[in-house]
Amino acid sequence: MARHLHIDARTVARTVDEARASRPSVHCITNTVAQNFTANVLLAIGMRPSMTVAPDEISGFVQHADALLVNLGTMDADRRAAIDEAIDIATARNLPWVLDPTFVEKSEPRQALASRLLERAPTALRYNPGEGQYILGAHSTEPDALSVLSRSTRSALVMTGAEDIVAVDHGLARVRNGSPLMDRVTAIGCALSAVVAGFLAVERDRELAIVSALVLYGLAGSKAEARSNGPGSFVPAFLDSLYSLTADDIIAGALIA
Amino acid sequence: MARHLHIDARTVARTVDEARASRPSVHCITNTVAQNFTANVLLAIGMRPSMTVAPDEISGFVQHADALLVNLGTMDADRRAAIDEAIDIATARNLPWVLDPTFVEKSEPRQALASRLLERAPTALRYNPGEGQYILGAHSTEPDALSVLSRSTRSALVMTGAEDIVAVDHGLARVRNGSPLMDRVTAIGCALSAVVAGFLAVERDRELAIVSALVLYGLAGSKAEARSNGPGSFVPAFLDSLYSLTADDIIAGALIA
Amino acid sequence: MARHLHIDARTVARTVDEARASRPSVHCITNTVAQNFTANVLLAIGMRPSMTVAPDEISGFVQHADALLVNLGTMDADRRAAIDEAIDIATARNLPWVLDPTFVEKSEPRQALASRLLERAPTALRYNPGEGQYILGAHSTEPDALSVLSRSTRSALVMTGAEDIVAVDHGLARVRNGSPLMDRVTAIGCALSAVVAGFLAVERDRELAIVSALVLYGLAGSKAEARSNGPGSFVPAFLDSLYSLTADDIIAGALIA
Repeated sequence: MARHLHIDARTVARTVDEARASRPSVHCITNTVAQNFTANVLLAIGMRPSMTVAPDEISGFVQHADALLVNLGTMDADRRAAIDEAIDIATARNLPWVLDPTFVEKSEPRQALASRLLERAPTALRYNPGEGQYILGAHSTEPDALSVLSRSTRSALVMTGAEDIVAVDHGLARVRNGSPLMDRVTAIGCALSAVVAGFLAVERDRELAIVSALVLYGLAGSKAEARSNGPGSFVPAFLDSLYSLTADDIIAGALIA
Repeated sequence: MARHLHIDARTVARTVDEARASRPSVHCITNTVAQNFTANVLLAIGMRPSMTVAPDEISGFVQHADALLVNLGTMDADRRAAIDEAIDIATARNLPWVLDPTFVEKSEPRQALASRLLERAPTALRYNPGEGQYILGAHSTEPDALSVLSRSTRSALVMTGAEDIVAVDHGLARVRNGSPLMDRVTAIGCALSAVVAGFLAVERDRELAIVSALVLYGLAGSKAEARSNGPGSFVPAFLDSLYSLTADDIIAGALIA
Repeated sequence: MARHLHIDARTVARTVDEARASRPSVHCITNTVAQNFTANVLLAIGMRPSMTVAPDEISGFVQHADALLVNLGTMDADRRAAIDEAIDIATARNLPWVLDPTFVEKSEPRQALASRLLERAPTALRYNPGEGQYILGAHSTEPDALSVLSRSTRSALVMTGAEDIVAVDHGLARVRNGSPLMDRVTAIGCALSAVVAGFLAVERDRELAIVSALVLYGLAGSKAEARSNGPGSFVPAFLDSLYSLTADDIIAGALIA
C-alpha cells in the first residue's frame, strides 16, 4: 500500500523562498511552442532558464546548469541528438532531470523514445492522465499502482490535472491547487515540468520539492483566475502571481492532501 | 459574375457555438513565430491544437486530427518533408486543410512550393492582398476574378485585410469586423488560418464555416481594441474575447455583406 | 581617452518619430525563444519584422530588408548556413547589421562563431556584461577600453544593463532608462538588438540611432513598470508603451549622460 505523505504548508512556503533565493539555472530541452512561456515562468519565479538544443553546444549549457528538463514535444534531429548527451552530463554531475512526454499518445516514435528515456531513471516524470498509459501502462492513473511504478522506475511520478498526484517510492501526496483556465493556455504543463526541475535542484527531498512546485504553480493559477477575464488576461496575471506570491499566501492557500 | 452570398448573423452565432462545443483538434504545421500564439488562439475558442512537424511523427498526429493547417512561414527540412504526407493523410481521411502562404512575396522557393500545394486543392487558401498575386496571379485582389479562381483552384479563397473577402465557387461574401491593432500583432493572420481550419472541421458548408471564423475573429479584435491601450494589452483582451464572446455579441456585431 | 558624446533628448525624440514613420523592415535571424516577442516589439514601434532562416530563402528576405539582426541564441544547421549569406547581402547592400552573441559565455562553438562574425565588422554589437568578456576580452566592461575596442572592431559597442554604455569610435554615451523587471522577461535583450538594427536603418549616425533605441526601449520599460504588478503584466504594458510613447514623453524622460 502507498503511504500518505504529510507535507506541511509552512515547509512548502520555506521551500518556495529557498527556490527563489537560490536562483537555480534550469536548462530546458523543450518544444518550440513552450520555449518562450517556459522561460518567462522560470524568470518570474526567479530561476534562470536556458534553452539551447544544438548537439555541439548542449554539454556547455548542461555543465552550467543546476537542473535539466527533457520535454519531447518537438522531436527534431538536434533535440534527438542532444538528449542523451544532456542526460549523461546531468547524471555524471548528479543534477536532477525531469522527463515530460508531451503528447506521447499521438506518436509511436515518441512513445519509444519516452520508454527508453524512462529506463534512464529521470528524477521525476511529469505527465497528464492521457499521456500516462502510453509510457507507464494501463494502471498509470491509479494511485496505488503509481506508488509501485515509482519504485520500479526509480522516478518520482507527477501526474497533473484537476488534482495532482505525486508518487515517490512508497509515498503519495495530492495537491488540489489550480484553475480550469490552465487547460486553456498552451504549454502550461510543459512549463510546470521546468519548474519541478528547478525545485529539485534546490531541495533534494523529492516529495517536498515537487509538492512545493505544484502548490506554487496551482496557487498562482487560482490567484490569476480571480484577477482575469479569460485565458488571455490569465497569462500575465499568472506570471505576476508566480513572481509575487508570499509565504503567507502559500500557507493560507496550499491544498495538500 | 460572382453571386453574392447571404449569410445570416444568427447562423454564424450558431456555428460558433458548434465550433466551441465540438472542440475540433487542429494539427498545425506552422512557423516558429506563430506556434505559441496559434495554440493559445485555438485553446481560447475551445479547439485543441497540436504542432508537431517531425516527418516520422506527422502521420500519427494528422490521424488524430479533425483539420490540418499548412503554413509556409518556416520552411525547414522537417516541415518540407512533413507537408506532403500530412496532406496525403488529410485527403485520404477527407479532413479539411488550409494553406497559408505567409510572406510568399519574399521568397522564390516558397512561391514554388505554394503553387505546387495549391494544385492539391486545399479546402481553403488564406492570404493577404500582398501575398495573393504571388500565388494566384495579378488579378487576385479583384472580387470577380477571385470567384473564377476559386473554381479553377477548387479552393475557397480567403483574402483578409481591413475587409475580408471570401470566394467559394460562384459565391462571394465580405466581412468587415476587425481592428487596425491586428496589424500590430505578429502571427494574427497565421492563427486565423488555423481557426478557419477548425471551423471547416465542424461545418462542411465552406462559406458558412469561413464567414463564421472571420466574424468571431474580427469581432474579438474590435472588442479587444475597445479594452486595450495598444498592441500589448490587445493580445490578452483578444484571447479573452475569443473565449467569452456570446451568441448575442455575434448577432449584434457581425458585419457581413 | 574616450570622448563623451552629447546627444540631446529632442534629437532622440525626432529620431524615434522618424523610425516610426519610415517603418523599416528588419530581418531577424534570431533564436526560437525570442522570435515571437521580437516581432511584436518591432511591430509595436511600427517596424516590419521577418524571421526566416532557411538557407535557400535568406537572400530573398535580406534583399527586401532595411536592416539585419544576427542573434546566436539558436545555432541550428539552417541558421549557421544562413548567417554568412545574410551578412554578405547586407554588406553588399550597405545595410546595417547587428550581432547579438546571446549566452556566448556558455558555449565554445558559439564563442568561435561570434569571434569570427565580429571580424566581419557588424554595424553594432549588442551584449550584456556577462557576455562581453567572451567576445571582446577581459576589459570589455571598462568604458575607456570599449572606446578602443570599438575602433579596432569597427563596430559600435552596446553593452546593456542597469546602465547602458554605447561606444562608437572615440565617443561614449550612457543611457540610464529602464526597469529591473526587464531582467524577468525572456528575450528582452534579444528584441532590443532588433530595435537597434531598425534604428540604424533610419539614422546612419550610429551614436544617435543607438541612443535613440535605448532611450525608447528603457523609457517604455519604466513606464510599463509603473503600470504593472510583476513581469507578466509588464509585457503588454511594455508593448503598449513602445507603441504610444510621445515625443514629449521622451524629452521629459530621457536619461542620457
